[in-house]
Amino acid sequence: MKTFKINENIKKYRFGNPFETYSVVLEGIPMHQDDMDRLIIGEGDLLSIKYEMGKEDIIWGLGENQRGMNKRGGLFESYCADDPRHTPDKKSLYGAHNFIIIDSQKPFGLYIDFPGKIIFDIGFTHKDILQIEMEGKDADIYIIEGSGLREISRAFLKLIGESYVPPKWAFGYQQSRWSYPDEKAVEELADAFDQYDIPCDAIYLDIDYMENFKDFTIDADKFPNFKHFVQKLRKKGFRLVPIIDAGVKIEAGYEIYEEGVKKEYFCVDEEDNPFVAAVWPGRVHFPDFLNPAARKWFGLQYKILTDCGIEGFWNDMNEPAIFYTERGLQQALEQAKLSENQNLDIYSFFALKDAFIHLSNHPLDYQSFYHKVDGKRINHHQVHNLYGYNMTKAAAEGLKEIAPHKRFLLFSRASYIGMHRYGGIWTGDNHSWWEHILLNLKMLPALNLCGFLYIGADTGGFSGDTNAQMLIRWMQLSLFTPLFRNHSAMGTRRQEPFAFDEESMETMRKIIQLRYALIPYIYGEYMKAARHKDLYFTALAFEYEDEFSRRVEDQLLVGESIMIAPLYQENAIGRYIWLPEDMLQWHFDRQGAEQYEMKHRGHHYIEADLKEIPIFIRKNKILVMGSHGKNIDALDHTQLRCIGFVEDQASYCYYDDDGETDEYKSGIYDEIRINIKKKHDDYDIHIEKKGNPRVEKILLDIVDQQGRIVEKNVILM
Amino acid sequence: MKTFKINENIKKYRFGNPFETYSVVLEGIPMHQDDMDRLIIGEGDLLSIKYEMGKEDIIWGLGENQRGMNKRGGLFESYCADDPRHTPDKKSLYGAHNFIIIDSQKPFGLYIDFPGKIIFDIGFTHKDILQIEMEGKDADIYIIEGSGLREISRAFLKLIGESYVPPKWAFGYQQSRWSYPDEKAVEELADAFDQYDIPCDAIYLDIDYMENFKDFTIDADKFPNFKHFVQKLRKKGFRLVPIIDAGVKIEAGYEIYEEGVKKEYFCVDEEDNPFVAAVWPGRVHFPDFLNPAARKWFGLQYKILTDCGIEGFWNDMNEPAIFYTERGLQQALEQAKLSENQNLDIYSFFALKDAFIHLSNHPLDYQSFYHKVDGKRINHHQVHNLYGYNMTKAAAEGLKEIAPHKRFLLFSRASYIGMHRYGGIWTGDNHSWWEHILLNLKMLPALNLCGFLYIGADTGGFSGDTNAQMLIRWMQLSLFTPLFRNHSAMGTRRQEPFAFDEESMETMRKIIQLRYALIPYIYGEYMKAARHKDLYFTALAFEYEDEFSRRVEDQLLVGESIMIAPLYQENAIGRYIWLPEDMLQWHFDRQGAEQYEMKHRGHHYIEADLKEIPIFIRKNKILVMGSHGKNIDALDHTQLRCIGFVEDQASYCYYDDDGETDEYKSGIYDEIRINIKKKHDDYDIHIEKKGNPRVEKILLDIVDQQGRIVEKNVILM
Repeated sequence: MKTFKINENIKKYRFGNPFETYSVVLEGIPMHQDDMDRLIIGEGDLLSIKYEMGKEDIIWGLGENQRGMNKRGGLFESYCADDPRHTPDKKSLYGAHNFIIIDSQKPFGLYIDFPGKIIFDIGFTHKDILQIEMEGKDADIYIIEGSGLREISRAFLKLIGESYVPPKWAFGYQQSRWSYPDEKAVEELADAFDQYDIPCDAIYLDIDYMENFKDFTIDADKFPNFKHFVQKLRKKGFRLVPIIDAGVKIEAGYEIYEEGVKKEYFCVDEEDNPFVAAVWPGRVHFPDFLNPAARKWFGLQYKILTDCGIEGFWNDMNEPAIFYTERGLQQALEQAKLSENQNLDIYSFFALKDAFIHLSNHPLDYQSFYHKVDGKRINHHQVHNLYGYNMTKAAAEGLKEIAPHKRFLLFSRASYIGMHRYGGIWTGDNHSWWEHILLNLKMLPALNLCGFLYIGADTGGFSGDTNAQMLIRWMQLSLFTPLFRNHSAMGTRRQEPFAFDEESMETMRKIIQLRYALIPYIYGEYMKAARHKDLYFTALAFEYEDEFSRRVEDQLLVGESIMIAPLYQENAIGRYIWLPEDMLQWHFDRQGAEQYEMKHRGHHYIEADLKEIPIFIRKNKILVMGSHGKNIDALDHTQLRCIGFVEDQASYCYYDDDGETDEYKSGIYDEIRINIKKKHDDYDIHIEKKGNPRVEKILLDIVDQQGRIVEKNVILM
Repeated sequence: MKTFKINENIKKYRFGNPFETYSVVLEGIPMHQDDMDRLIIGEGDLLSIKYEMGKEDIIWGLGENQRGMNKRGGLFESYCADDPRHTPDKKSLYGAHNFIIIDSQKPFGLYIDFPGKIIFDIGFTHKDILQIEMEGKDADIYIIEGSGLREISRAFLKLIGESYVPPKWAFGYQQSRWSYPDEKAVEELADAFDQYDIPCDAIYLDIDYMENFKDFTIDADKFPNFKHFVQKLRKKGFRLVPIIDAGVKIEAGYEIYEEGVKKEYFCVDEEDNPFVAAVWPGRVHFPDFLNPAARKWFGLQYKILTDCGIEGFWNDMNEPAIFYTERGLQQALEQAKLSENQNLDIYSFFALKDAFIHLSNHPLDYQSFYHKVDGKRINHHQVHNLYGYNMTKAAAEGLKEIAPHKRFLLFSRASYIGMHRYGGIWTGDNHSWWEHILLNLKMLPALNLCGFLYIGADTGGFSGDTNAQMLIRWMQLSLFTPLFRNHSAMGTRRQEPFAFDEESMETMRKIIQLRYALIPYIYGEYMKAARHKDLYFTALAFEYEDEFSRRVEDQLLVGESIMIAPLYQENAIGRYIWLPEDMLQWHFDRQGAEQYEMKHRGHHYIEADLKEIPIFIRKNKILVMGSHGKNIDALDHTQLRCIGFVEDQASYCYYDDDGETDEYKSGIYDEIRINIKKKHDDYDIHIEKKGNPRVEKILLDIVDQQGRIVEKNVILM
C-alpha cells in the first residue's frame, strides 16, 4: 500500500497497480505511510474493507441503487447491469457509484476507484458490519474527511471534478416513448403539445428511427428528409433527441461496421477476432471505448446527426447489454435438443428453462471479451464498469471537437464516477409502480453525492401501465429534476399528458407550466451546484443536524431555498412531513395572501389533493421564478418574481448565462444578488448586478414569520 | 335477469344460468324484478358492470391483491395465479375474492359469484369509472346494503357463512422452510427452539418429505419411521405440518394414481384421457375436485397422514400451478429446433426466449382440460377459480369424516370465497422485500372482508434474502395474524429466529413470547369474529368516520380493543400515526407505570426502535392476556391479566374453549364478562362467568384518561 495526500481533506491509499479510470481529477503527493486506522483492510487476491458500524451510524451514497437513502441493511453489487425489473432486492442497476459517507460520530467519505465488481455488504449479513469486497487486488481507496456531511461531499466533488452542464433547453419538459417511429408520429405529437397548450422542448427518437437499429443511420422510409424534418420541428419549437446504442451492427456495407473492423476499433474475443454479441440490431460488435483511438472515431460519428441539426443524444445499452451470444444460444439450443422426447424430471426441466431465461447479460459473456489499452489486452469483466462511462466520454469528446464551445444534451444509461464530467444519466428502465416514485426520490441526493447532477427518471414509469394519478404524482417530483422526461415502453399504455381525461391533463399542464416558471431557480441552482462543486438535491441530514432530519427519506432540499415533500402513495390526499425549522409553504396554484402558509418546526400532516404540490421555502431564503412559456427559448427573462421568507435577513444570488455555450467558464454570465435585511418593521432591500442580466423588473414579496405578506416590492433594474 | 331477496340487506340478481359455486349459504326468494339502479349492467356474451365513482369514493375489498386497501386506481384480474413475483403491477395473485364495498355517500357491497375470469378496472382506465367484466354471461350478482361499512361487511359474512376455525395450537408460532428435509433436520430445529428458549408449536414439512413428491407418501430414507417420529416430536412439544400438492404423480404402482385413473377421478383432456401436466413430481394428473366422488376419495387420503398423528396440512399448487405441458414444451422445443444455425434477428430471438419463459401457467393449458360435474364436461378455464377451493373442501370434508369433531389445521394457497368455511390461506410466495410487509398489512382487512379469518404471510419473506431487521419488523406485524409462520425458499438465507446475531434473536424471542402472552386476546377475538360472522382485522374506516381514518392504510384495528401501527421501512426508528380518538399506547416491554403512555386524538410521530412494537388500547376497551409458555399447550390458563383504558365504562368478553373440537358450536365454551364503570373517583368492577373458565385470578390495571394507573385489582374467581 502506498499513501498519497491529495489535500487537507483527502488521502489516497493505493493497493497494487490499479487500472487508470480517470475518475478523479486531483493528483496527490506521496506521503509517509498512513495506517488507515478507520478501516480494517484485508489484502490478498481480493482486497476487502471492514468497518464496525455504531448503532446510530448511517451510510449515505452508492448513487443509483435500491433501498433507502440510508443504505444500511442492504447488499449491493457494483457491476453495471441492464436489468429491466428494478425489484427491491436487485443488487445492481445501471451505474457503478462506489462512493459512500459513513455518518458516524466522526463522519468520513470512502471512495473506491476500482472498475471491476465490488460487493458492499452494509449490515446485511451482520447488522453492524460494513464489509466491502473487490474482485481484484488493485485499487485506489480514498478517505475523505470533513467537519460534516456537506463538507465531505464538497471535498469529494472537488476530487472528481466539475459536473457536466447541458444546454438550458434541456431543462424544459421532454416527451419520449419507445417509439415515435416516423415523421408523422413525431409531428402529430408536437402539434398535440401546441394544441393542448402544454410546454415542451424536446421529443425523443427511440431505436426505431434508425435503419435496422444501426447507429448513426436514419430509416429513410420513416424520415425521408431527416435534416429538413429536424429543422421543421425546430421551427415549431421542438428539438429531437435520438438514441445511440453501444453495439455496432455487423452488416456488410455498413460503413461504421466496416471501418471499425478494419481499424481494429472493436473489442475482441479470445482469438483476437471482433467479439460478437446480439442486441437490438441482432449481431453486433462492441466499440472498444477504452481505446482512445476508437473513442475518438466513435465520438466523431455523432457529426452525422449534428450535421442534421441534432443537439442532444442519449446513449443506451452501454453496460453493455447483451441479449445473447452464440455461446449461450448454442448451449441453450443444445439443452433443448437433449430434451426432445425425454420424460423431463423437474430438475432437467428447470435447467432447460433457465438456459433460455439466463441468456442475457451472462457473466461468462462478460468474461469472454477484451479491450486493448496501451497495447495490453484487458479482460472486459475486470473493467466492466467503465464501458458506458467511456462511450459517453467518446460522445462528449467528439461533440467538443465538432462544436468546441457548444453545449449538447448528453446522457447515458450506464455510468461510473468520472462520467459525470461528460454527461448526465437517466435511471433506466423503471416501472409504472408507485414504489418507483419513492425510489426515484431516494436516488436523487445519492446521485448528486456521486457527481451526477443532470439526472432524472422515466416519469410515469417505463415498463407497465401507469394511470393518470400516478403520472401526476410522479410529475410533481420530476418537475424538480434537471432531466424532466416522460418515457414509456412499447406495448404499454400511452402516457403523454393528454393521454388521459381532461381534468388530469389540466393538472399536468399546470405542473409543466410550473416547471417552466421555476426555470430561473432550477437552472440557476443547477449551474451554481456545477460551478461550485456542490449538491443540487440534498437529504435533510446534510443541512440539519437534528435526529429527525437524519432519518427523513422522503423529503428533499432542492437548491438552497426550498424543500419538497412529494406524494407517492396511490389515493393519498395528504402526507406527513418533518420541518426542521419554520418554513413557508407556498401554494403555487393560489393567488395573493392565499399562496402562503406558515408552518412551524415540527411534525405535520399536510393536505395535498392531486392539484397540490408541497413546496416549502426555507427560513431566510428567497425563491426566484419567472413565468411559463411554450418552451425554454420562449421564456420571458425581463421579469423576475421573488418570494423572500424573511425572519431577519435573506440573500439570494440569481444566476443566468447564454444557456448554449461554455462561455460561463470564462466568467461570462449574469448574476443578481438580492439582499433583504429586516430593520425594525421595515426591510432594507439591496440589489447587486454582475454581467448584463436581461431582468428589467423584480417583483418581490416579502413574507414574515407569521406568513403575512409584509411588503410587495417592484424593483426596476 | 331474475331477482331474489336474500334478506333485508341483500338482493341477488341472477344472469343466465350460473355454475353452482356453493360460495353462499343463504338462499333467497324470487321477487319482483328490481332494476338494480345502482349499477349499469351490460348484457350480451360478456356480462359487465359499470359504476361512476364520486371523487371521494373508496373501493374496499378484493381480498388477496396488490395495491392499497383502497383499490381505486388499479386493474385487477380475478384468476387464481401461481406467480412468484408479487410486483406492484400483478393483476392476480393466488386467490379470487370478488367482493368489494363501494364506499360512496350511500355505501353498498357488491359480490360477483362467477368462477371464471373477471376484470376489475377500478378507475385505472378512467379515474372515475369502475368497470367490471366477466368472461361469460352466467353469474349471480349480490348487492349488499347496510347503514355503514361494518354493517355491510357483517351482512356479507352472513351470506357466505361461518369461517373455518383451526385448533388453538395453530395460533402458536410456526416455523417452516423449503425444506427441513429429514428427521435429523427437523429434530435439530426443534431442539434449537428449546435451546434458545423460543416458543414454537409447529414445524413444517415442505415437498421434500415425500417420496418423489407423491402426495400422501413419506420418503423412507429421510423419515424411516414417520409415525414414531411424529410422536417423538409431539412429545417434545412440536406438531409437524406436511404439505399436500394438487397434482398426483403419474407412476405405475403408485396406488393413488392408479385408483384415480381407474375410477376416473382426474380431470380429462379433449380426448377424455386424464389430462397431463408437469409440476414438482414431473408429470401429474389433476384430481377433479369439482366431482364429489373424486373430492371424497382425495379427502380420505389424508387419513394416511392423520393415522401417523398429523393434525395439520397446507394445500399447495392448487391454482392449479402448471410448470409445463407437453403442448407447450413441444412448441418451445420446436421453436428451438427451427432456431438452430439461423442468424436470429431480434424478433425471432425474443420469440424463442418467450416460448420457454411462458411455459408455466399458460392460458392455453387451462383451456385444454375438463371437469365432469353432474355428468357434464366443463372446461377448466370457466371454473378455474374453484379448483383450490374444492381441493381444500375435499380435505376438510375428508378430515371431518376421519375425525368428526376434531379441529385440524388446514390452509390453502389458491382460494375462492366459500373456501373460507373449510380452511385458511397463506398469501403465497412473497419476497423478502420491505414493501411486502406493507402489502401483507393491507391485505389482512381485505381478506377478512371476503370471509378469510385464518390468514398470514410468509413472515420474513419466501423468496430472496431477508436481514435481521426486516424479519423483526415483519414479526411485529405477524404477531397479530392468526397464522404466524416464518417460511422461506430453498436457496435463500436461513431465517429462523436464531439464524442472525444474539441481539436480534433476543428481540425476536420477545416478539414471539408476546404472541403467546396475547393468546387469550388473539384466540378469543378470532373465535368471536368467526362465531358472530364479524371482522378480526379492520381498516380504521370501518370503526371511525372521520376523513383521516378513511384514508389510513398502514394501521389496523385488531379485534375490538387494540390498534396496531407496524413499522415497515428499513432503518426507521419511528413512524407517523393517526389516532381517531384518545388511545393508550402500551409498551409491552416496560414495567409498571412506564408501560402506559396516553396519546390524544390527532397525528403523532411515535418513536419505535427495533425493540418497540406500537400497540394502542382503544378508549373504553380492555386488553386481556396471559403469560407466555413453551407452546400453546403449555400456557397457564389460571391467571388473566387485563388492562382497561377507561374513560367512563368498558366491558370485555373473554372467550375460551377446548381449542380442539367443534363443541363450541354446541354452546360448550367459557366466557368471562368484565364490566368496568367509573363512578366519581372510583370504578365498579363486575364479573360474569359462563361455562367453566379455567381462570382463577384476574389482575386488572385500570388506566385513566391521563394514562395513570388508577387501580390495580386482583380478582379471585
